[in-house]
Amino acid sequence: MNYMTGAVCVKCGHEQEAMPDTTTCGCCGGILDIRYDHKKIREALSPEQLKSRREQSMWRYMEFLPVEPETVAKMNRLRVGCSPLYNVPRLAERLGVKTLYVKDDGINPSASLKDRASAMAVMKAAEAGKKVIACSSTGNAASSLAGNAAAAGFETYIFVPERAPKGKVAQLMIFGAHVISVKGNYEDTFRLSADAIERYGWYNRNAAINPFLMEGKKTVSLEIAEQLDFKMPDYIAVSVGDGCTIAGVWKGLKDLYEAGFVDRLPKLISVQSTGCCPINRAVAEGRPLEPMEENTIADSIAVGVPRNPDKAMNAIRESKGICVNVSDEEILEAMKLLGSYGIFGEPAGVTGTAGIKKAVEEGLIASDSTVVSIVTGNGLKDTANAVRAAGEPLSLSPDIDEFIRWMKGA
Amino acid sequence: MNYMTGAVCVKCGHEQEAMPDTTTCGCCGGILDIRYDHKKIREALSPEQLKSRREQSMWRYMEFLPVEPETVAKMNRLRVGCSPLYNVPRLAERLGVKTLYVKDDGINPSASLKDRASAMAVMKAAEAGKKVIACSSTGNAASSLAGNAAAAGFETYIFVPERAPKGKVAQLMIFGAHVISVKGNYEDTFRLSADAIERYGWYNRNAAINPFLMEGKKTVSLEIAEQLDFKMPDYIAVSVGDGCTIAGVWKGLKDLYEAGFVDRLPKLISVQSTGCCPINRAVAEGRPLEPMEENTIADSIAVGVPRNPDKAMNAIRESKGICVNVSDEEILEAMKLLGSYGIFGEPAGVTGTAGIKKAVEEGLIASDSTVVSIVTGNGLKDTANAVRAAGEPLSLSPDIDEFIRWMKGA
Repeated sequence: MNYMTGAVCVKCGHEQEAMPDTTTCGCCGGILDIRYDHKKIREALSPEQLKSRREQSMWRYMEFLPVEPETVAKMNRLRVGCSPLYNVPRLAERLGVKTLYVKDDGINPSASLKDRASAMAVMKAAEAGKKVIACSSTGNAASSLAGNAAAAGFETYIFVPERAPKGKVAQLMIFGAHVISVKGNYEDTFRLSADAIERYGWYNRNAAINPFLMEGKKTVSLEIAEQLDFKMPDYIAVSVGDGCTIAGVWKGLKDLYEAGFVDRLPKLISVQSTGCCPINRAVAEGRPLEPMEENTIADSIAVGVPRNPDKAMNAIRESKGICVNVSDEEILEAMKLLGSYGIFGEPAGVTGTAGIKKAVEEGLIASDSTVVSIVTGNGLKDTANAVRAAGEPLSLSPDIDEFIRWMKGA
Repeated sequence: MNYMTGAVCVKCGHEQEAMPDTTTCGCCGGILDIRYDHKKIREALSPEQLKSRREQSMWRYMEFLPVEPETVAKMNRLRVGCSPLYNVPRLAERLGVKTLYVKDDGINPSASLKDRASAMAVMKAAEAGKKVIACSSTGNAASSLAGNAAAAGFETYIFVPERAPKGKVAQLMIFGAHVISVKGNYEDTFRLSADAIERYGWYNRNAAINPFLMEGKKTVSLEIAEQLDFKMPDYIAVSVGDGCTIAGVWKGLKDLYEAGFVDRLPKLISVQSTGCCPINRAVAEGRPLEPMEENTIADSIAVGVPRNPDKAMNAIRESKGICVNVSDEEILEAMKLLGSYGIFGEPAGVTGTAGIKKAVEEGLIASDSTVVSIVTGNGLKDTANAVRAAGEPLSLSPDIDEFIRWMKGA
C-alpha cells in the first residue's frame, strides 16, 4: 500500500486519480500535484522510526512516496540518494552567513540529483506495465534515466539537444540508451520527444508532464531534514532551470510539514543565470513568464522556455523566497569556492551556492542565517568549464632544480 | 586509542614502531605493513555491533584502522566509502558465473577508490603535525588527495605525468591543489615528487612508501564483507597498476580473518592490461619483476615500474589467486557491459570485470563461482574513452517523420 490520495491540477484545481501512467490534468492539461494522507503517514512513521532504518537510499522514505513498496522491493536498482550533507564553516565564513550546509547530490550513481526522479520514473513505468521509457533532456535527466532504467533492464529512448556536453552523452551511450541528438535547442528537442512518445506509447519521463518525478526529487528535502534532525534551516538555495527541481524541493518540505515532521518551513533561494532567468524574472516582476535566450555555461539550467514554471513559481512565492541571478563568472567562482572544500560541482550544480554569495552581498539574507545549498550535479560532467574555472597546471621538466626555482618564485 | 601494535617490513621482517610519519623500513628501506592486536579488536567489536553503527563512511571500521578516533572526530572531512555493492544477476549470466557482485567505488567524493587512501593520509598528516601533503599520481590518487585535503584545510602539492586526462587534472585544480604537470612518464613524476617531498618536509602520500594508505584502501574489503554479511565470495577481482590497491584489498580480508569476522578468504583475481602487466608477468612466471612499457588506455593502471610490487605479489600468491591480462578492446567492452547495468566505470575501473570474463573463458574459474568485482573509478573521469567504447549518438533534425523513418530502419 501507499499513502497517495490522488492528483490535483495546479492550474484548475481538478482532482483525479493518480494512475501510474497519469500525466497532465484531464480537464485543462495543467501539471498535476500528487497528494497524500499526511495523517496516515504520521501514524505509520515517526521521525525516530525513520532514523533507525537500515535502508540507505531514497527509498527509506517509502511512506512519503507514490509507489508500492513491492515495486521497489523486486526491482534491480542503483543506490540513489542518501547523499552527504556537509557542514562547511570555512565556506560559511567566506560567503558571510552563520552556518552553511552543502548537500552534495553529485555523488549519485549517474552523478546528479536527477537520479532521484529517474529512479522514480522506472518504478512508475513498471507499475504502468511499460518497459520502454523516453525523455528529452539537456543531459542529467537523460543519463540518470539511462542508468536507472539499465539497472532495471528497461529500454530507453533519449532526445538530447546537440549542445549537450560530450561527457554527458557518452555516459548515456555507455548505459545502452538509444540516443537521438537533435539538431536544435531544448525546445525543439522536447517537441520531438513528445511526438515520439505519443506515437510509440512509451513511458514519459519528461518532468514537466510526469507528476511523479517531482516526488522522487523531493527526497532531497526529506534527507536534508533528517540530516538536520528535523530542524529547518532559514534558507535552501537551489539552481533553477525548468523549475522541476526547486518545485520538488518545496514539495518535500511541505509534505514533511503537513505530516508534522518539521514545525516550520525554510525560504527558497531560486538561483538562475543572468543569461537565462525567465522564472526569476517572472516572479520578481510579478508578470507571466516569457521565454528567454539560453546564454549561460550552466547547460543543465539553460532553459529558455521552462515547461513547468507554475510549480516552481508557486514554490518560490509560497516560501516567501528570494530570486537571485548570477553571471557565468560568478558560477565559475562558486566552482572554485566549493572545490576549496573538496566538493566538485558542475556549473549548474554550483549555481545555488553562487546565488547565496550574491544574496548576502545584496543584503537579501541576514548574516546570522543558516543556509543549505544543494549541489545538483558532479563537476566531472563538464570538465571543459572546470578547466575554465581553475586554469591550467604548471608544466615542468622532471628536474628538482627547476622545481626549486619555481617554489622560490611562487 | 587504536589497536596497532607496530609496523613490520615485508622485505626483511624488521619490526618498528608505527609513527604517524613512518614511511619505509629503518633497516632495509622495504615497504612496511601495519600490524594490529586482532584479539583486542574482536573484544572491542563484534560483527553485530558493527552492523548497528550509524556512521556511513569508511570510519565505521575504526577499530581496524591505524588512527586515533579523536583525530577523525575533529576533522572536517568528506564522506568516503560505504559505496554500494550490487548483486547483478544479468551480468553474472553474461560473464558465465553463478553470482556476481559489483562494488561501485566510483561514487566516492572524488569519484575513485583512492579517496579511501587519501582520507587516511589526511588523518595521519594531522597526527604527524603536518599541514602540507604531496604525492605523484596518474590522476586518481592526486584528485582524491586534493579533495580530501581541501576539506581538512590542508595544502597539497601534486605531481602528475603530462598524459593524465584533462578531466582529472581539472578536478584537482578546482580543489585548489598546487599542480605540477611533469614532462615525462609516471617514473619521472614519482622521482621529482620524492625529491621535492624530501627537500620541503611535506607529508608523503605516495602509496608505495606510506604504509598507512593501504590501511585506508583495505576498508573496501571491510565493506564488501559486511555487505555480504561476512560470507566470503570465492573470488575478488581488481585491476592492478602499482599494486597498492590489490594489496589493500588483501590486507582488509586478512585483518577480518585474523579478528575472526570471516572464516575463510577469497582468492584474488589480479587483472592488468596486456600492454602493461609487469606484476602479473612476474607472478605468473615466478620471476622477479621487470619494468614494462605503458601501452594501455587504462591510464590509472598504466604503471610500467610499480613502486610497491612486493605486497601485491605476496597478496596474489597468498590468496592462491589468478593473474589475467586483458586488451584495451576487452576493457572497452567491459565498460559497456557494466554500463548495461547502469554502472559507469573508467577504463582502469572496469579492468577487473574484464578480467572475470577472460578468466571464465579461459577456464580459470568455475561457472558456479561467486565473484566480487571492484569498480575502482568513475567513467566520467575519462569520457574520451567512453566515447570510444560507446560510439557517437544518432544525429537527427527535430522532425518526427525523420525519426519514424529511422525507427523503421533501426
